[in-house]
Amino acid sequence: MPRYFIGEDAIDGDIITVTGADAVHMGRSLRMREGDAVTFCRQGTEYSCIAERFTSDSVICRIVESFPSMAEPRLRLTVYQAYPKADKAELIIQKCTELGAAAFVFFPSRRCVSKPNDNKAVRWQRIAEEAAKQSGRGIVPEVRTLPSFEAAVTELTSADLPLFCYENGGERLSEQSYDIGTAGIMIGSEGGFDRDEADMARDMGAKHIWLGRRILRCETAPIAVTAVIMDRAGEI
Amino acid sequence: MPRYFIGEDAIDGDIITVTGADAVHMGRSLRMREGDAVTFCRQGTEYSCIAERFTSDSVICRIVESFPSMAEPRLRLTVYQAYPKADKAELIIQKCTELGAAAFVFFPSRRCVSKPNDNKAVRWQRIAEEAAKQSGRGIVPEVRTLPSFEAAVTELTSADLPLFCYENGGERLSEQSYDIGTAGIMIGSEGGFDRDEADMARDMGAKHIWLGRRILRCETAPIAVTAVIMDRAGEI
Repeated sequence: MPRYFIGEDAIDGDIITVTGADAVHMGRSLRMREGDAVTFCRQGTEYSCIAERFTSDSVICRIVESFPSMAEPRLRLTVYQAYPKADKAELIIQKCTELGAAAFVFFPSRRCVSKPNDNKAVRWQRIAEEAAKQSGRGIVPEVRTLPSFEAAVTELTSADLPLFCYENGGERLSEQSYDIGTAGIMIGSEGGFDRDEADMARDMGAKHIWLGRRILRCETAPIAVTAVIMDRAGEI
Repeated sequence: MPRYFIGEDAIDGDIITVTGADAVHMGRSLRMREGDAVTFCRQGTEYSCIAERFTSDSVICRIVESFPSMAEPRLRLTVYQAYPKADKAELIIQKCTELGAAAFVFFPSRRCVSKPNDNKAVRWQRIAEEAAKQSGRGIVPEVRTLPSFEAAVTELTSADLPLFCYENGGERLSEQSYDIGTAGIMIGSEGGFDRDEADMARDMGAKHIWLGRRILRCETAPIAVTAVIMDRAGEI
């Protein structure tokens, strides 16, 4: 069944009004007709609807039933990623959204050689939305940036379980408890984190985590860690 | 330290002779000199060496010490992947090699729309070698193809733990024991497996595995499953 994410202003009582690209998609690409079923999602709630009327630029739908999305992990996981090179951020956002990450925060660190322009932010958010649609998520993960490593660590350490992935050693993912509400994972760019950054993260309350004896690329690490945490949280 | 994979014929007593692209890389790209240290790997054994002589097309090195590679997982995991579209096979090979997969087997299934040509096999093996080098593996995972779904299931079910990932349900990865020698995971193409294929796999001895309530793309599933199994085998 077709499935779209909607904003708060699309809902009025038991009517959902769709405009823009999604309305075009419903009418012209899918050739939906009055009486067809469609699902809308907003912030973890799903709305089963029937399309009632198609206008030139909108679709008016009636809510039949609403319920909490079954596909949302109980554990809210945020990925804190130092800016990687090239298109790696896109791969990270797409794969970690499928696996259940709740939010992405990109930030600069000492060994980052890349800094994205503002166009990237729009593109990254669209990739999160597409991956959320495709994988059947109940929310679109938010993609944000922070201006500094310190700002990112400050936010990371507000999670119930703040994990700092560090190639020079630490505890294992398997040693942590995932019966918690929020977790954050911080991953370096291609060059990793330097010693000062690792020390600062630990001093501010993050736990150093070691990912084993094979060297993972900077885009492989967040995907692997998200998969492992979702498995250990009972979500895979 | 520079690190290369070598064939059996490169070793003679305590001398390793490197030719071809690796010799060019050592001499011209890295500008190595006599007396420089270099590591070679062959099938899980690492050789610490000193470069002794550079000729126009070879490098002669003396073995100082040899020992089993520390980076090889104890669990030997083979990924059985129905042919995916486009470049997805490359992503699967690269990421799962980093994470510790021992071998890759590609095969056709009913819903596959893609079939690679022979050039792909050479390219896929090269991607495995590059990823093995980069991640510090002790072996280069072998990449093979099989002509049919049935041939792939037959091989899969010779593993101690043969897992068939199926969107219509099954056991969880977390319910399995990974204190074993060999495991195989079978993953569908974009369209998944059909009911007959799933039944055949179960009848031949494979265990149906369900990956949770989010729909993973066909290239995300093998990466996530490899990460989870390596974590549960104590390797991440």
